[in-house]
Amino acid sequence: ILPLFFISCLVLSSSSSSHAAVQDFCVGDLTAPQGPAGYSCKNPSTVTVNDFVYSGLGIAGNTSNLIKAAVTPAFAAQFPGVNGLGISSARIDLAPGGVVPFHTHPGGSEILIVLQGTITAGFVSSANTVYFKTLKVADIMVFPQGLLHFQVNAGNTVATAYVSFSSSSPGLQLLDYALFGNNIPTELIAATTFLDSAQIKKLKAVLGGTG
Amino acid sequence: ILPLFFISCLVLSSSSSSHAAVQDFCVGDLTAPQGPAGYSCKNPSTVTVNDFVYSGLGIAGNTSNLIKAAVTPAFAAQFPGVNGLGISSARIDLAPGGVVPFHTHPGGSEILIVLQGTITAGFVSSANTVYFKTLKVADIMVFPQGLLHFQVNAGNTVATAYVSFSSSSPGLQLLDYALFGNNIPTELIAATTFLDSAQIKKLKAVLGGTG
Amino acid sequence: ILPLFFISCLVLSSSSSSHAAVQDFCVGDLTAPQGPAGYSCKNPSTVTVNDFVYSGLGIAGNTSNLIKAAVTPAFAAQFPGVNGLGISSARIDLAPGGVVPFHTHPGGSEILIVLQGTITAGFVSSANTVYFKTLKVADIMVFPQGLLHFQVNAGNTVATAYVSFSSSSPGLQLLDYALFGNNIPTELIAATTFLDSAQIKKLKAVLGGTG
Amino acid sequence: ILPLFFISCLVLSSSSSSHAAVQDFCVGDLTAPQGPAGYSCKNPSTVTVNDFVYSGLGIAGNTSNLIKAAVTPAFAAQFPGVNGLGISSARIDLAPGGVVPFHTHPGGSEILIVLQGTITAGFVSSANTVYFKTLKVADIMVFPQGLLHFQVNAGNTVATAYVSFSSSSPGLQLLDYALFGNNIPTELIAATTFLDSAQIKKLKAVLGGTG
Amino acid sequence: ILPLFFISCLVLSSSSSSHAAVQDFCVGDLTAPQGPAGYSCKNPSTVTVNDFVYSGLGIAGNTSNLIKAAVTPAFAAQFPGVNGLGISSARIDLAPGGVVPFHTHPGGSEILIVLQGTITAGFVSSANTVYFKTLKVADIMVFPQGLLHFQVNAGNTVATAYVSFSSSSPGLQLLDYALFGNNIPTELIAATTFLDSAQIKKLKAVLGGTG
Amino acid sequence: ILPLFFISCLVLSSSSSSHAAVQDFCVGDLTAPQGPAGYSCKNPSTVTVNDFVYSGLGIAGNTSNLIKAAVTPAFAAQFPGVNGLGISSARIDLAPGGVVPFHTHPGGSEILIVLQGTITAGFVSSANTVYFKTLKVADIMVFPQGLLHFQVNAGNTVATAYVSFSSSSPGLQLLDYALFGNNIPTELIAATTFLDSAQIKKLKAVLGGTG
Repeated sequence: ILPLFFISCLVLSSSSSSHAAVQDFCVGDLTAPQGPAGYSCKNPSTVTVNDFVYSGLGIAGNTSNLIKAAVTPAFAAQFPGVNGLGISSARIDLAPGGVVPFHTHPGGSEILIVLQGTITAGFVSSANTVYFKTLKVADIMVFPQGLLHFQVNAGNTVATAYVSFSSSSPGLQLLDYALFGNNIPTELIAATTFLDSAQIKKLKAVLGGTG
Repeated sequence: ILPLFFISCLVLSSSSSSHAAVQDFCVGDLTAPQGPAGYSCKNPSTVTVNDFVYSGLGIAGNTSNLIKAAVTPAFAAQFPGVNGLGISSARIDLAPGGVVPFHTHPGGSEILIVLQGTITAGFVSSANTVYFKTLKVADIMVFPQGLLHFQVNAGNTVATAYVSFSSSSPGLQLLDYALFGNNIPTELIAATTFLDSAQIKKLKAVLGGTG
Repeated sequence: ILPLFFISCLVLSSSSSSHAAVQDFCVGDLTAPQGPAGYSCKNPSTVTVNDFVYSGLGIAGNTSNLIKAAVTPAFAAQFPGVNGLGISSARIDLAPGGVVPFHTHPGGSEILIVLQGTITAGFVSSANTVYFKTLKVADIMVFPQGLLHFQVNAGNTVATAYVSFSSSSPGLQLLDYALFGNNIPTELIAATTFLDSAQIKKLKAVLGGTG
Repeated sequence: ILPLFFISCLVLSSSSSSHAAVQDFCVGDLTAPQGPAGYSCKNPSTVTVNDFVYSGLGIAGNTSNLIKAAVTPAFAAQFPGVNGLGISSARIDLAPGGVVPFHTHPGGSEILIVLQGTITAGFVSSANTVYFKTLKVADIMVFPQGLLHFQVNAGNTVATAYVSFSSSSPGLQLLDYALFGNNIPTELIAATTFLDSAQIKKLKAVLGGTG
Repeated sequence: ILPLFFISCLVLSSSSSSHAAVQDFCVGDLTAPQGPAGYSCKNPSTVTVNDFVYSGLGIAGNTSNLIKAAVTPAFAAQFPGVNGLGISSARIDLAPGGVVPFHTHPGGSEILIVLQGTITAGFVSSANTVYFKTLKVADIMVFPQGLLHFQVNAGNTVATAYVSFSSSSPGLQLLDYALFGNNIPTELIAATTFLDSAQIKKLKAVLGGTG
Repeated sequence: ILPLFFISCLVLSSSSSSHAAVQDFCVGDLTAPQGPAGYSCKNPSTVTVNDFVYSGLGIAGNTSNLIKAAVTPAFAAQFPGVNGLGISSARIDLAPGGVVPFHTHPGGSEILIVLQGTITAGFVSSANTVYFKTLKVADIMVFPQGLLHFQVNAGNTVATAYVSFSSSSPGLQLLDYALFGNNIPTELIAATTFLDSAQIKKLKAVLGGTG
């Protein structure tokens, strides 16, 4: 038995409160307010391995919808173990004909790996160049932070992908929802997108927008 | 005269090369390759006050165009003095009816101040809520990093604004150009935006897109 | 109507609390404690566009004072919408003869744009080189983080400037106030600045210092 | 056709060199020196979609080795498209009985997803608590930056996993190689690990260490 | 007396709450929860110079233990004044024969300065190269973040060192404690380290491990 | 001997150039240009332990000067091993009566430890509060980034201190040199400091300033 190993270290540490543990991790407490760097940390003494494991990506998302696709996030809000660690994940399910339409992640870059099927994925740079390619199983593709990108099922079978982000809360802004799924007046959308009013109203009707 | 003030400091410093100066700033050398953090630094011995001053925002941008608007950037590529300092600027000119259409800055947040006229500005959050307001002279508005936003002349006179960014290279992705100003195939745009093909082709014709 | 769009995404999100929204922004709650990254976030459900707009820079600061100048900040403490976004602003008013004396911003770099009049502005580098120039309307100048700098009205009319910072809380340390506006003993100031005691006492009298 | 869209923007941009493009990404030039933030960027005009896609994770690593396991990285050194984007990936192959022994990633946190088989994975905190669990297909687990962790095939069949990191160059320090795969003198290892010399020499013989 | 110096600045500041002070520092409140960036800040109005001074490193750590060594930390948990400032310290005491065994700091790089005696210190890179040297008084050595390193008394007298870290909470993961000071099952340690079970059990007995 | 350990890892790594090593560290190449994040890295294959060890702080600085003090830096420019690691050091020597006058480090926070003698040290916050105290041997004090601070020998014997910084290039701006050691016109200094011209000219004569 070690009698006095690192005594000053241990004594000092134990004189601190339960919040004073070395900050290896900061499992998010979703019931407390956030700060700019993320959620407050759960008391470390209540943390278990289950805080670091998430099984929610094991179930295929429901693709019985307009886009024949589903995105299932494992961001800090769903998987609090990643809070503050600069990483998170999501699952993409694409039925045949499925599409994850143009979107951005304002807070992080993304790497996608194809798990099943084939997927045509691409992004557009600030210089308006489009980079897109049809990916097969195990291909990975990176999408730089904040740029518009999309994923489309390129085959006749179900396609699935797993994506990771360089942030525990990368955000997800879907272009169609941002434009047509809220109450921005039609004429303002027309002015700021050059789309025809009829086109805007048609998509508002589909996506639940008003005004 | 001080004979030996901080001698060890001075001796050590002077034994370093001209590149070894303390890194208060890093004026960008646009002729050298960039790294992830920005441009290589100009040799500090060649830096003058003119590297830190930029007069390019003093001239109104030409608004004789489709959008009756102009954005004149002072990013690191135009104003190398800001390289590495986490800040940059731009000028917005809006003729009557002028619009800066929906766009994002993938690399930074933005603050706008109205210098002349009135401007309706807004952004859409990841939760698809739109936040917009008509701003008068000297009002400031902040647009969080990576979110879709727009500015529209809300009056009958010229409007101008000055904007600043939390990055020396914030980027600028104009939605219309990203979608309709390049060679993404029309059917791929249709699939990833739900826009009608006729609408897409109409805007491709305006914005120079092909395919 | 879209029946089941992104269902797994929406279901998962809605099972989180009101604090669990994607962190596009973090409007500061000034009544809660700060952390190293800034203020705690207001509950997103209470956020409106007015949190992102600030009109406090529309009123000229009162320059009827010793320095014939005023600095009106729009930092996170005044404009909580910028909290965590890495940017903030301020307005500078300079009556004829007005001066913003030597100061630093410990937490951020600054870009100044002249809105009215002419301003002589400058900063000193760690290598003790001074970079200064007289700026006209619409000139911009950048001041790297933490370096001593100043702004002086260079004309016979009112001058105004708008400044932006690469931090939502850049801080402001005014040299004269730091030295002469508190209770540092005169002899300690003399020892650490080489100023004469008479000079120190004279400025303490002006700036409210004691000791 | 749009005659003069954003003319000041375009004119200013085109007057810059080919290196001056907005820095959406920075595909690494592996032939140029690195800086602290990563590799120098390839000239953007030579970048194609293939810089953002990597197929090297599609081939199972060779597990005919001592640990019956293989780690195939897609870090910036192998997949230069991730350079500067704060994210990278790797593939883990575990034959029956396979083990990725205790190791750390000094530069990033990790998320693992099980693609095939079952894997017992765990990490040890600074407080010396071990968090480990047997993961099934599609379970994800996060390993905080810099902490010792391991992965073990928990079944009788091949197991594979895909991992992502919060850095484009997270590093990989394998404990056994660090201790026994180089020329640290045996007595120094003994003193700094409390391992018996015989144990050390036995593992040096296996792992190629000398001294 | 200065009547109206910077009035708009002062008025705006004083209208904010006591939490709204410019964030020069953020003395940690150890009784409040942490966030990913560190502890919540103490109310600035209660901060005194004693929050920024720590005398706990003035007492030699007790080296009457197995390793004949002690590490006395001055991290944010012991010295809350460093919270959020990206720096912290510790003291190392090494009796003759004393050893700080292999360990890592997951959250920061370290600089060591020898204050007394001679110390052999080294670290191992991701490429498994060992860099070690015997240091004399006033020599400094840097240990990059997250890499395994050690310090050994190289002489016959007491040796002491003072170390600093690039984080206010760098963490400390001692290899022996991580492996043998908890309840990881022996067979799992054997599988993930290649150590013999007898060796593992011997060290578990010394370091208090179970299983 | 291990025949095929981690073969895919090794094969991929060895196919990269000598620059492609995992970036555990980035020893600065002082002969190459800097970027915003620091110096370019030396080729890792030429790095030895001596790049990580620095003996330059072992020699007392020459205090036969006006301030009876010397600051000997071990920043990246003197000690390239710290480049990119977010940490650096310096030595302070104070003869009886010695003073390190008011100065700032624009790029980093500082921790000081007294090695010999007694030192009165202090800093001034943005709120103009002064925090100062007389420190004895082994006391440590932290100075937040960018704030004015000073160190004074508080006794009758030589005092020495060792300081560390949260940056590999924290910078050092000495107030007196910044104001009086260059060519800022006397009238401009007077206007921006409220100091009397006679005082300014007296200090310019001492510190080598002109104009």
